[in-house]
Amino acid sequence: MKLEVIGTAQQVSADLVKGKTVVVIDVLRATSVMVSALNNGAKGIIPVLSPDDAFDIKKENGTDVILGGERHAEPIEGFDYGNSPLSYNKEVIAGKLLVMTTTNGTLAINNSLSAKELLIASFANDKAIVNEIKNHKDVVLVCSGNNGLYTLEDALCAGRIIHLLQEQSVELELTDFALTIESLYEINATKLHETASKGYHYNVLKTKGYLKDLEYCFRSGICDNVPHWNGQVIENKS
Amino acid sequence: MKLEVIGTAQQVSADLVKGKTVVVIDVLRATSVMVSALNNGAKGIIPVLSPDDAFDIKKENGTDVILGGERHAEPIEGFDYGNSPLSYNKEVIAGKLLVMTTTNGTLAINNSLSAKELLIASFANDKAIVNEIKNHKDVVLVCSGNNGLYTLEDALCAGRIIHLLQEQSVELELTDFALTIESLYEINATKLHETASKGYHYNVLKTKGYLKDLEYCFRSGICDNVPHWNGQVIENKS
Repeated sequence: MKLEVIGTAQQVSADLVKGKTVVVIDVLRATSVMVSALNNGAKGIIPVLSPDDAFDIKKENGTDVILGGERHAEPIEGFDYGNSPLSYNKEVIAGKLLVMTTTNGTLAINNSLSAKELLIASFANDKAIVNEIKNHKDVVLVCSGNNGLYTLEDALCAGRIIHLLQEQSVELELTDFALTIESLYEINATKLHETASKGYHYNVLKTKGYLKDLEYCFRSGICDNVPHWNGQVIENKS
Repeated sequence: MKLEVIGTAQQVSADLVKGKTVVVIDVLRATSVMVSALNNGAKGIIPVLSPDDAFDIKKENGTDVILGGERHAEPIEGFDYGNSPLSYNKEVIAGKLLVMTTTNGTLAINNSLSAKELLIASFANDKAIVNEIKNHKDVVLVCSGNNGLYTLEDALCAGRIIHLLQEQSVELELTDFALTIESLYEINATKLHETASKGYHYNVLKTKGYLKDLEYCFRSGICDNVPHWNGQVIENKS
């Protein structure tokens, strides 16, 4: 497998992802929300770039639509929920369509729509993602980052995916940046959360009091679902 | 000290470097050439973006000018020397002005000209650079990369500078990316050349037969000079 890592949502382009399997990672917190919501029975997720786009979809589709997301890590006025994966439990989300807009994760997804296959990953479904992609030929791990800046937590999740692929004896051809992310993971493998807690974005969320989210978002392998973009919505692969 | 690392020449902008000390790194091979040439007595280096700019300067300044550089790792027609640091020995370069154009390093320098201070580093002068910057407040290590792509060898050199600063008990406030480069260095500290040899650009040069350069460019601390941009040329700090 050829495997590359891209460090921010802004660096993704149609050229870079065309014909490839793209795995979008936004650990804090968009893809952690998406994996959790779909694991709890959401019937689909539509990522949109603006709150207005989200309101339009809700107007057209009625009560089965839940609006979720954030701007600058804060809930959006008029939305049903913010960007905490813990909000999207079965009672809230089962059978509903989630329309989401976030600062980084939804941008990374929208910039990756021309991929051959677009998958959504977080620590929560890391093992399921690896089982899904282990026989793919050309994979791009997109770290969403934060407002154009590279973030440790997404890179550590990308590193974990590389590590899990190697554990399954997948032969990897890594770019220079992917080799760097591999090193980042290997030296921090036993202290992922501790290392991530040195990161800028982590500390923004910590200061805002999202401690339970920060705990949850580093739990590995707690979901078995593989969300993918089906051309219209993000849903679980069957 | 606040310290950040930028992964490619193309990512450098006036905004990112203004008011800061910038250290440009292009291990293979532009900054290895610059450090070596100035260490061997070159009276200055002018980095230019095109061969035509270089020819113009030689026309104006006559026989004391040496033209050096590369395009796609190959010597440029009509130039005196290529991009091998081993070419610029004392006999060739002492007392001469070196006009250089390379694919990556000179671009990184030209994009960094609005820095408060612009220094040139390679493994050859890593220790001298650290002694120079250890009391600075705001430092950006610019990895030149290769044609817009991040390269392992420049990142390993940046990581070594971070490591040497820490050895001197400099208190560092590292960005997420700088923390990653720190990890990259620490896990590979005893095998820098071996790790770099997995990189794409390294292997381009290996295939072209530049084996002596590849050996030379990973030798740490063999030069004591600190090249800086004085507003007109790159010369050694006195």
